Amino acid sequence: MSGKSNPGNYFEDFEIGQVLDHPVARTITEGDCSLYIALTGDRFPLHCNAEFAQSLGYRREVVNDLLVFNIVFGKSVNDISLNAVANLGYADVRFMAPVYPGDTLSALSKVIGKKENSNLKTGNVYVRTQGFNQSGDLILQYYRWVMVRKKLAGEATDEKAIPNLPAEVDAADLPTCPELDLSKFEARATGGRWFWEDYAPGELVHHGSGMTLEESDHMTATRLYQNTAKVHFDQHFMRDSPGSLRLIYGGHIVSVAKALSFNGLENALRILAWNGGAHANPTHAGDTLYAFSEILEKIELPGRTDAGGLRLRLIAVKNQDPEYAPLDVKVMDEETERERYHPNVVLDLDYCVLIPKRDRT
Amino acid sequence: MSGKSNPGNYFEDFEIGQVLDHPVARTITEGDCSLYIALTGDRFPLHCNAEFAQSLGYRREVVNDLLVFNIVFGKSVNDISLNAVANLGYADVRFMAPVYPGDTLSALSKVIGKKENSNLKTGNVYVRTQGFNQSGDLILQYYRWVMVRKKLAGEATDEKAIPNLPAEVDAADLPTCPELDLSKFEARATGGRWFWEDYAPGELVHHGSGMTLEESDHMTATRLYQNTAKVHFDQHFMRDSPGSLRLIYGGHIVSVAKALSFNGLENALRILAWNGGAHANPTHAGDTLYAFSEILEKIELPGRTDAGGLRLRLIAVKNQDPEYAPLDVKVMDEETERERYHPNVVLDLDYCVLIPKRDRT
Amino acid sequence: MSGKSNPGNYFEDFEIGQVLDHPVARTITEGDCSLYIALTGDRFPLHCNAEFAQSLGYRREVVNDLLVFNIVFGKSVNDISLNAVANLGYADVRFMAPVYPGDTLSALSKVIGKKENSNLKTGNVYVRTQGFNQSGDLILQYYRWVMVRKKLAGEATDEKAIPNLPAEVDAADLPTCPELDLSKFEARATGGRWFWEDYAPGELVHHGSGMTLEESDHMTATRLYQNTAKVHFDQHFMRDSPGSLRLIYGGHIVSVAKALSFNGLENALRILAWNGGAHANPTHAGDTLYAFSEILEKIELPGRTDAGGLRLRLIAVKNQDPEYAPLDVKVMDEETERERYHPNVVLDLDYCVLIPKRDRT
Repeated sequence: MSGKSNPGNYFEDFEIGQVLDHPVARTITEGDCSLYIALTGDRFPLHCNAEFAQSLGYRREVVNDLLVFNIVFGKSVNDISLNAVANLGYADVRFMAPVYPGDTLSALSKVIGKKENSNLKTGNVYVRTQGFNQSGDLILQYYRWVMVRKKLAGEATDEKAIPNLPAEVDAADLPTCPELDLSKFEARATGGRWFWEDYAPGELVHHGSGMTLEESDHMTATRLYQNTAKVHFDQHFMRDSPGSLRLIYGGHIVSVAKALSFNGLENALRILAWNGGAHANPTHAGDTLYAFSEILEKIELPGRTDAGGLRLRLIAVKNQDPEYAPLDVKVMDEETERERYHPNVVLDLDYCVLIPKRDRT
Repeated sequence: MSGKSNPGNYFEDFEIGQVLDHPVARTITEGDCSLYIALTGDRFPLHCNAEFAQSLGYRREVVNDLLVFNIVFGKSVNDISLNAVANLGYADVRFMAPVYPGDTLSALSKVIGKKENSNLKTGNVYVRTQGFNQSGDLILQYYRWVMVRKKLAGEATDEKAIPNLPAEVDAADLPTCPELDLSKFEARATGGRWFWEDYAPGELVHHGSGMTLEESDHMTATRLYQNTAKVHFDQHFMRDSPGSLRLIYGGHIVSVAKALSFNGLENALRILAWNGGAHANPTHAGDTLYAFSEILEKIELPGRTDAGGLRLRLIAVKNQDPEYAPLDVKVMDEETERERYHPNVVLDLDYCVLIPKRDRT
Repeated sequence: MSGKSNPGNYFEDFEIGQVLDHPVARTITEGDCSLYIALTGDRFPLHCNAEFAQSLGYRREVVNDLLVFNIVFGKSVNDISLNAVANLGYADVRFMAPVYPGDTLSALSKVIGKKENSNLKTGNVYVRTQGFNQSGDLILQYYRWVMVRKKLAGEATDEKAIPNLPAEVDAADLPTCPELDLSKFEARATGGRWFWEDYAPGELVHHGSGMTLEESDHMTATRLYQNTAKVHFDQHFMRDSPGSLRLIYGGHIVSVAKALSFNGLENALRILAWNGGAHANPTHAGDTLYAFSEILEKIELPGRTDAGGLRLRLIAVKNQDPEYAPLDVKVMDEETERERYHPNVVLDLDYCVLIPKRDRT
């Protein structure tokens, strides 16, 4: 072997302050947007209805926020998480500007923290990742931390520099979509009967449909994002793993759950930010996903009277329809006496959307 | 549960004369057209060859007639058939105008009839559905009736208003594709050796290939159409249904059978109308589809001497190749002593195509 | 049966000198390019990054060379290989000019040789196939030979005219991509650390990831290419074949293996030619592909000082990771005492790429 192929980075390879310029910028096309709809079932009209998007001040259909996220994330995998054991968390994920078909997205990450784990086999790496369009505009920014294998297990590096990451995006920092003009917004375009005023903190919205996951679907989506993590693709490699099956990329789960959430959140026009998220349990082909949302908070957006923010907790559940078979998202583990996710919960996403007010005068 | 998600309409929710403006208009793109080819195997050149389409007077490739049908149908599901037990029939389906990539399709339905069933659990609802492009041109119109669950099973509503629907589209009402100019038509573009004059009523054309259906393929197609009917997607829900499997959307079966029919009907340039159609038996992943067509009638199209209409009966058969193992489309049910479809027949579509004449002077 | 469907050509139907003008030219769109990425995992930036392509002198993203190959090949199947028993070989495959989204590809083949086999059941047919864009520019040319069934098995035709095909493309005949301007090339766009100077004949590059193949994925890809060979699609037909499973189209295997080869060959910008290729063993859904490349030769390209050619041997292996479980590509068959491919080797492709030199002054 010549060593010309990229083995990915190990814990020791990362240096605090290091900037990784992720190769293979990607021009997003109409084809990508069609595939996103076909693979996730997305129906949010800003992403599939050019007339509607133009009536709101956009140049044309806007690329789905999560397609943008998945593409930017995909670019970072080869440098950050090819040797990851687990994707531990996200913080301060902000969707800064709209992306249109034809835009070319590039991404870079800065290493902002490292912490060796006590087993000396792995360590956590903290990065800030940024996505840019071809004009250099920042279109997405997020913090993420992953558990990465060490090259030399057992040899202590004593590295411990944990960054101080915000538990939530400050309301003053929330993107407010200045390009969005709601003066011509009509709810008949979304079919949504509910506006910002209609949702109340603590309210649960069940999204009413299930989606069964298939190997082809999640692999096709993940390849579309040019995400190379082998746990999603290589059954020969995974047959000896716990569960013996390929793991479905967490971003696909977010996308499918968000698409299901259209039923009950039809007027959630844009994602503004994620405060955090957990891939609570793994998913595999054959699992059926259901989703519900809890309204966590109602937010006044600075400078906007026509729309507000809703902070939502999007919960995805596998193989149990939580509308008819309710469950506790977290349960007590009898062995460890610690709280953990219910084994059927697969996603717990804390995020904010923009939603028009009923009264937009 | 907050009741914010849409549970779909039940029999009692429909009122005769009611107009349902279906949300989420959809801009059809090149991406959708590529996916349609990739998911169905379509080869009809008007939909994949811009040069050929332009030589016939079209602006560019024309969106496949059945992709248009499936998109318009998909929009109506959420309002009409989310609680449907069965899709009972179609009448007077007319393809009025070409649709191009970039066009935005919207749809609305008018309730034109209702009939409670004697079991008092379900009723039939009759609608006329229309699809429009962004300029407001009517591009597709059809009648459809579905069996829908009642909210209150057992309580008689005594509703019975069955509309008088045509058994076939009158020849005078057939679309004639005025934009189509055959003066530069060359059969080398289609590879078709047969013209309108060459087909004879009663003739059978076997289409020569089989296509095995997969879960990913039918779900991806059905999601592309933003059709939300849960019987197609939710294996957890369907495991207790008869057959225990997801049902494949009937429109996917029509699309695959029509794509197979290219072999032997290469010059069938456009679909003009459906007289009616039956999804004779369900299909599931793993089934292999074969198709043959019977020439029912040859039609002179008003105002055209360069092309005629062929009325065809497109029969799709599962898991038996009807070219080598012929079958009767309908058989006598020994128990009920009534005629029913052969259990391997899955589609019986009575439709009309436009086909150039050999002599176009 | 009316005989209107095309049964495909048999050995006796081909005449030396005959030209087959393959129907259904195909406009390649952005949608096709997105699907190609999603189905193969391709990451080569010339095909997904418009900014990068333009910086190298191209009008926009260039359609993947193998997507072009598969589309042109697909057109020829209906006329050449619908009744093929085996795809025996390729020679002198040359990629002559870039193809852009929006271009319409047509194809024709000329019969250049025939040889009846001694069993009198089959014969080999040799063709030269050419692909053209809408301006008539030759964009792809190759020789191919296939074993085709005879109509009348047992009756000798005594046909034997084997053409003299080159074992390799002469260096003087290699396309040199005159439109490619490397003055602004930056390796950060590809992420590749290795240039022409860095590779040495005899060197092996392992590509580091595996890709499990699914029925939906290979069928969707093969339908995208409008390839109609029933062995890829019809499980009902194939259940009585050796292996009882659909065969995966060899062109899909080439595409997946080439996509895997990005890891270690990031700067291989274009495919120039194939010298030859063998689909060494069949692949089926569920198989996992790995790939490695051997550097066969370094070639100075006439008229270019900024880039050179690399002649590569791309080996794809199923269900065994050759990086950790090395194998001999060819092994001795103990029964026949002849060399044959290792049963896990599925592709042996001898081809040339263009790769920038480190020193481009």
